[in-house]
Amino acid sequence: MTKPDSYWLQPIGIVRSALQRREDAPLQGREGGPEAWVEIYPEFLAALEGIEANAEVLVLTWLHLARRDVIKVRPRRVATNPLLGVFATRSPDRPNPIGLHQATVLEVDGRRGVRLSPMEAVNGTPVIDIKPVQCPHSPGG
Amino acid sequence: MTKPDSYWLQPIGIVRSALQRREDAPLQGREGGPEAWVEIYPEFLAALEGIEANAEVLVLTWLHLARRDVIKVRPRRVATNPLLGVFATRSPDRPNPIGLHQATVLEVDGRRGVRLSPMEAVNGTPVIDIKPVQCPHSPGG
Repeated sequence: MTKPDSYWLQPIGIVRSALQRREDAPLQGREGGPEAWVEIYPEFLAALEGIEANAEVLVLTWLHLARRDVIKVRPRRVATNPLLGVFATRSPDRPNPIGLHQATVLEVDGRRGVRLSPMEAVNGTPVIDIKPVQCPHSPGG
Repeated sequence: MTKPDSYWLQPIGIVRSALQRREDAPLQGREGGPEAWVEIYPEFLAALEGIEANAEVLVLTWLHLARRDVIKVRPRRVATNPLLGVFATRSPDRPNPIGLHQATVLEVDGRRGVRLSPMEAVNGTPVIDIKPVQCPHSPGG
């Protein structure tokens, strides 16, 4: 197999949160992540149109504090858990450290971004995409 | 706001599928995507350890045929649908064209990768991550 080149991601926004350090972050948002703002850079604000309060969204982040050279981990950072490949876990340490966070939209501000909860990513985490959990106008949703 | 630099993604594998053209792909996998192999590059094969047949996984792809300069779309490509911001839709055309595909693992081959279904991405689509739908060893899953 010929391996293709790498690809570049452009940050579309940034997490603004009271969570300041990775070691304070819960392992999963549903374990108690706080609310946070996802501030969107001006050229991408129009891409929010159609997102409303109470919508369930998936926020994709770039976990900039993660290690990219990790292939196996002990899940939940517990020493007695078996070593697993990172693709079998939600570890932030992985070849492409993309975080996937499901959250409920609390507020949309067309000049700033979206306020949502829960968000376990720390303050300053780059945001690379927002998607609806279900597709508007699809048969299922 | 000072906008940070861009980030680089390294492909960890590639989709091998009978689906050859974007216009033949279903809009969502649950609408009839076929099975496909996700072939993993040798240096990342060990990261599959712990993934088993019947597991539900999320495959993240780089939608290399998508446009990155699109901010608003008509969902489902229907002319009478209202224009929405791409972050309110699952359109592949978006600033960072990352595809998110939920699929069931049919087979794991430690020298090749994983066979799974459904997969609506076309043959040759770069793969950038695989995650479990639920975290092993978590309270919920």
